[in-house]
Amino acid sequence: MELTTTGSLLRELFARFAPIGALPGGGVTRLAYTEREDEMHACFRDAARDLGFRVWTDCVGNSYAAGFPEGTQDYTLIGSHLDSVIEGGEYDGVAGVLAGLAVLCELRERRIGTPVAVAAFRCEESSNFRVCTVGSGLVTGTLEDAVLRGASDRQGVPLLRHLECYGFDPHAALLRGCARYLELHIEQGRVLQERGCEIGVVSAIAAPHRFLLRLRGMAEHSGATPMSLRRDSLCAAAEAILAVERAGLSEAVNDSVATVGCVENRPNVMNAVPGETTLQIDLRGIREDSVVRMENAVRREVEALCARRGVGFTLDAVDVKHPVLLDEGLQKRLCAAAEALGLPHMVLPSGAGHDAMSFAELCPTGMVFIPCRDGVSHNVHEHTELSQIENGVRVLVRLLAAEQA
Amino acid sequence: MELTTTGSLLRELFARFAPIGALPGGGVTRLAYTEREDEMHACFRDAARDLGFRVWTDCVGNSYAAGFPEGTQDYTLIGSHLDSVIEGGEYDGVAGVLAGLAVLCELRERRIGTPVAVAAFRCEESSNFRVCTVGSGLVTGTLEDAVLRGASDRQGVPLLRHLECYGFDPHAALLRGCARYLELHIEQGRVLQERGCEIGVVSAIAAPHRFLLRLRGMAEHSGATPMSLRRDSLCAAAEAILAVERAGLSEAVNDSVATVGCVENRPNVMNAVPGETTLQIDLRGIREDSVVRMENAVRREVEALCARRGVGFTLDAVDVKHPVLLDEGLQKRLCAAAEALGLPHMVLPSGAGHDAMSFAELCPTGMVFIPCRDGVSHNVHEHTELSQIENGVRVLVRLLAAEQA
Repeated sequence: MELTTTGSLLRELFARFAPIGALPGGGVTRLAYTEREDEMHACFRDAARDLGFRVWTDCVGNSYAAGFPEGTQDYTLIGSHLDSVIEGGEYDGVAGVLAGLAVLCELRERRIGTPVAVAAFRCEESSNFRVCTVGSGLVTGTLEDAVLRGASDRQGVPLLRHLECYGFDPHAALLRGCARYLELHIEQGRVLQERGCEIGVVSAIAAPHRFLLRLRGMAEHSGATPMSLRRDSLCAAAEAILAVERAGLSEAVNDSVATVGCVENRPNVMNAVPGETTLQIDLRGIREDSVVRMENAVRREVEALCARRGVGFTLDAVDVKHPVLLDEGLQKRLCAAAEALGLPHMVLPSGAGHDAMSFAELCPTGMVFIPCRDGVSHNVHEHTELSQIENGVRVLVRLLAAEQA
Repeated sequence: MELTTTGSLLRELFARFAPIGALPGGGVTRLAYTEREDEMHACFRDAARDLGFRVWTDCVGNSYAAGFPEGTQDYTLIGSHLDSVIEGGEYDGVAGVLAGLAVLCELRERRIGTPVAVAAFRCEESSNFRVCTVGSGLVTGTLEDAVLRGASDRQGVPLLRHLECYGFDPHAALLRGCARYLELHIEQGRVLQERGCEIGVVSAIAAPHRFLLRLRGMAEHSGATPMSLRRDSLCAAAEAILAVERAGLSEAVNDSVATVGCVENRPNVMNAVPGETTLQIDLRGIREDSVVRMENAVRREVEALCARRGVGFTLDAVDVKHPVLLDEGLQKRLCAAAEALGLPHMVLPSGAGHDAMSFAELCPTGMVFIPCRDGVSHNVHEHTELSQIENGVRVLVRLLAAEQA
């Protein structure tokens, strides 16, 4: 199949990013505020410059590109992120940033003068610091200061210390002049694929409530400690993991989900009863009451099982966000654009968080989903066809062109 | 509190060994067949010689001391080891060897003529070569040749090569004339402490059956994957951990234990449904049928839960050993000795492995446990009071004196 101009551009751009953080068996690891993410941003700025756009960065390391002169007001910002999870795919985030560059090129080609900038945000994924949408949250002033101060990497080094090392200032001036925010993203689910849709217009973004559950038992010799004397933190953790799953299943009717994604166990050797186990718990829903019910159920069960086992615990919120409703006018106009292009489309909520959350309270915000194969994401097998990204680009260009006309 | 003669002797002996492999923050590292272990053996031979005993070594570097003339037959051997784990304590093994010297002194003092030798074995810990009881196993011919040939250190240098460098010969003559084996060791558990006992008489040494359980689900986005579509390997692992615990609890009446000590989870991040989780399973018991029942129960439950969850698995044995029963007559006489001394005592199995395992099939073998604080061992915080070691010495002396009378 021959590629269109936009398809060729996307292929070329993805090829430039491909080696960065690439894993031998496929997929990528490009953790936030590491050298890999730095390389992604340098690559973005080089690519945008090569395409003839003006590029700049802000006080926390987000990168931007635009054709309009500095100081322009009331522009539309098209953004997403360049960091990844550990062993993730190359489309999550990057597809939206590169689609933004493709929109800029297409608008220039068609001499559509509406001012548009592209943003590549830092640290959208919570993989490195356990908090998400940091780059967009800082520059919109929507990241709570307590969350910022509490965030640290896997070695315990505070996020603030990382920012300081870069010479970044999390409290410097906010983004100015942005009148509207648009984001294209892979769906990371399989609703579009199952419904045969090429375009998803996002109605709302689910809120993650995130917790750290620390369980403290007693580390002992696994051969010399009878079952009745044990205070095994990993057994307590196992019960907690299943309690989280049950909470998610009981709220599945409300499209909520509950996950223990991460476990750390000490001393974690064959011949010792585990003494200290930590779980990261992620509860999400588009209905706040549903998420709160899950949280209460988990807390109740953890209290009971720890009391029964003589295991100590702390259950601390590390990030609590609220469901975000996206602009209804933009939803209608995005649907109209897809309709006009003959692309099968639907309106759907997003279970995943996105940088768009940082903008929804500040300005009209819209999101376009494109399918990813079998809904697989946060996985090295994540895949989206360039033609599907191009469909999303066409919808955004159509929206902007229609407004101009 | 004033020390007895035996207490003073033990204090003096521990002081001589204290600097060898000592760590700045407390504890010791004296890995098998390294210079540190060599120093321990030189120190043992010097100390025994200073106390007026004859000393010798065998063809694999084990050290011995005795008051009787060379060629004496049908002696009692009191042994343990002088190597340690990485960041271990100074009592594990050493307490038994020094107790042996104290027994020799006490018998001489009391003119009890029964022939007794003390053995300090090499390489009891599996920390350096991943195999245990090497020194006692070689000299009793109970170490399987395949195990010996397969053993190598952490840098991959074969154990056989190390022995060759020392000029040792693992296939030379076996130990002769030993009619009985006794060993004093810290309990490395806290059964004695919890039951208020000063002396444990060991009934049997448990055998570890060790397995690796690999679970393969599907790593996906934790926000965008509905509960009903998940194949979460960590949830499957949680069920497996509890199945292992249930197997241990149901065989606790047979003094068996079942532990998941180690978990590895991938990708192990907050925002991904886990896709691959590996558990290390350690089943131990003094009754082989009990261990096999635990193994069968775990396998049955894992099969069922994985089928239900659509999660793939492999469950592979990595090390299978057999339980060792200690001499019943010796158990009775050791209990009688503790009873006569007014020392609270109990019969209990050993979950941990010991040099005594190498002798149990060759001659009547007995073991005395003394408490260690809170059951902590294989840890720099390991601690036992000299008075507690002395209690063990008194029990051994009482046993030998009673036989002489």
